[in-house]
Amino acid sequence: MPTNSEKRYIPGLEGVVAAETRLSSVDGQKGELLIAGFPVEALAANASHEEVAYLLWHGDLPSPSQLADFRQALAARRSLPPATHALLRAAAAEKIPAMDALRMAAGTLNLDAGENLPFTLLARAPLAVTAYWRLRHGREPVAPDPDLGQAANYLYTLTGERPPAARVRALETYLNTVGDHGLNASTFTARTIISTGSDLVSAVAGAIGALKGPRHGGAPGPALQTVFEIGTIDNAEPVLRHKLEAGARLMGFGHRVYKVRDPRAELLSAAAAGLYRSGDAAQGGMPLYELAAHVEKVAVALLEEFKPGRKLQTNVEFYTALLLHGVGLDPDLFAPTFASGRLAGWIGHCLEQQSNNRLIRPQSVYVGERDRQWQPLDQR
Amino acid sequence: MPTNSEKRYIPGLEGVVAAETRLSSVDGQKGELLIAGFPVEALAANASHEEVAYLLWHGDLPSPSQLADFRQALAARRSLPPATHALLRAAAAEKIPAMDALRMAAGTLNLDAGENLPFTLLARAPLAVTAYWRLRHGREPVAPDPDLGQAANYLYTLTGERPPAARVRALETYLNTVGDHGLNASTFTARTIISTGSDLVSAVAGAIGALKGPRHGGAPGPALQTVFEIGTIDNAEPVLRHKLEAGARLMGFGHRVYKVRDPRAELLSAAAAGLYRSGDAAQGGMPLYELAAHVEKVAVALLEEFKPGRKLQTNVEFYTALLLHGVGLDPDLFAPTFASGRLAGWIGHCLEQQSNNRLIRPQSVYVGERDRQWQPLDQR
Repeated sequence: MPTNSEKRYIPGLEGVVAAETRLSSVDGQKGELLIAGFPVEALAANASHEEVAYLLWHGDLPSPSQLADFRQALAARRSLPPATHALLRAAAAEKIPAMDALRMAAGTLNLDAGENLPFTLLARAPLAVTAYWRLRHGREPVAPDPDLGQAANYLYTLTGERPPAARVRALETYLNTVGDHGLNASTFTARTIISTGSDLVSAVAGAIGALKGPRHGGAPGPALQTVFEIGTIDNAEPVLRHKLEAGARLMGFGHRVYKVRDPRAELLSAAAAGLYRSGDAAQGGMPLYELAAHVEKVAVALLEEFKPGRKLQTNVEFYTALLLHGVGLDPDLFAPTFASGRLAGWIGHCLEQQSNNRLIRPQSVYVGERDRQWQPLDQR
Repeated sequence: MPTNSEKRYIPGLEGVVAAETRLSSVDGQKGELLIAGFPVEALAANASHEEVAYLLWHGDLPSPSQLADFRQALAARRSLPPATHALLRAAAAEKIPAMDALRMAAGTLNLDAGENLPFTLLARAPLAVTAYWRLRHGREPVAPDPDLGQAANYLYTLTGERPPAARVRALETYLNTVGDHGLNASTFTARTIISTGSDLVSAVAGAIGALKGPRHGGAPGPALQTVFEIGTIDNAEPVLRHKLEAGARLMGFGHRVYKVRDPRAELLSAAAAGLYRSGDAAQGGMPLYELAAHVEKVAVALLEEFKPGRKLQTNVEFYTALLLHGVGLDPDLFAPTFASGRLAGWIGHCLEQQSNNRLIRPQSVYVGERDRQWQPLDQR
């Protein structure tokens, strides 16, 4: 066994491989994201979110009867425990962010749950978000509609109205696009927790806690704020140039892994275009989409001018904000909606870790004092 | 950037150093545990738990006035949010394990909290355990006594009676002994969550979720069960020999890190002797202590006979069970009591991570299929 001084501390565990996975592959040089072997572009806009969750949990797309069973299992569990409702009501009185409310509620979702926690969590966690949102705005929660799927129920239980198909499709594409993405900090947290032999609710609650952090979950809200601030196509170049001259960071650009355009940005841009073009967007229309697309083009060009060689490309946040705005979501709902999509991946990673488990337990190196002597309180 | 195939997957991150810390040092060869530079033996039986928490958070033992302020800050926060009480009541109706109830409640402890989450968590989390225990057994929670400290209030809010000094001292020694222990899976989970920029409640709730797992939190309950099963000193050798011949694992012996006797076993053994000798143990007396000590001696000798060279020594669980039994705790309370002690370390590690933060984000390597083609549902 090497002594402390022989071991190498790897800050952030950067470059260390902590898991083998069949769930997703991220190639930041090529700008390629595979979801269980499928390019994300092949799945996101075509599949229902239930199909993607099934794929992440089972490794294959479901047959029609498998999908029907999967939907049925979710529908049967799509209600919150009364204690979770009561907790959300108390949280609403304090007006905490929706992401905090989801994290809090997630830990309670095994109450009153019966068997099969993967379905229970996937069905219930998004409901906690929408129920909280209504409670926080003085409205009572709405019971889900058993005829609607995962994405449609999210919007239905948020608004109390059956959502137009274009809005459901846009949200579904978003949930699928963010369903899994290699071993990010929240997914790693989930795998670490489940590796102790703990349960899925503990793992998912921990993952949501990790996703909460601004260094992970990101900030799609501010990306759209810049677009609103710019307001007109003519303003894009001068406003962005002014920001960059002042040393400001442009929100929605740059990623630790992707050095080319994030494939998710492409997907979400196309989905946003489809939604705004349909005329069924809850907020904004084609002029907003066109403004955002122009802002993106100008921003990428200016970033190359101001930071040559840094390859700062549009990341997933920019079009997330634009798309979710059109779906009708407040920016405070962006992070918990991200969590509601990533949930399928977290659960899939936990199932994968359980199937071939080993306790995840790195070491620390001690850099503090030694040989200190105890002194009783009255001698200090 | 190396390609996937060049990167080495390190199962369990074994041997990888993921943090530098000044909080504790574990030397499994020497059987040495330092807590912020002090041998654990110098602190555990002498210090109050508040002093150890202060040490872990600040790096030095407190002066009398610093300690008074610290105690006051805890006392001021030692009450549960009404919503947490309501949640625990609902959990009690389902009779979930106390550790599950703590994990669930921990995520809600920032409700109604005001400033300074380290104090809020340290004051409130143990209360969630004792309130739950009373509710689960049909009794109403007891309000803490502001004149009592952390350990005494744990027993007071559990039983509703002022505990004898020997019992408080025994519990305090236990809480101090388990206050920190390098980078175990729960501490690592807490550091990973806080490294995203998330909050302390998220980190601690995640850590509790990790500690829940049997591969981490261990199983002190069964260790004592074996002692009860043996019953008399004369039975120890034949019963243990029979178990080993049948291939059974002896609970309470062997540790992944320690190859000599765990220094915590030594400490807790002495603390248990003190408690049982005092006559103030809540359950059992010196005969139980002597039986357990004999069982330990026989077990270690037999393990050397049956598994020569494996160096299977008494671990922390064996005397944890004996000590906490004498303190009056049911085995279901052992794990959440462990968590209540480790809380000081988790919070200290989060403060340390925040003071010099870097996102903890290892990678995964993709081992799944590629180039799969999308097929619509009706073609599957």
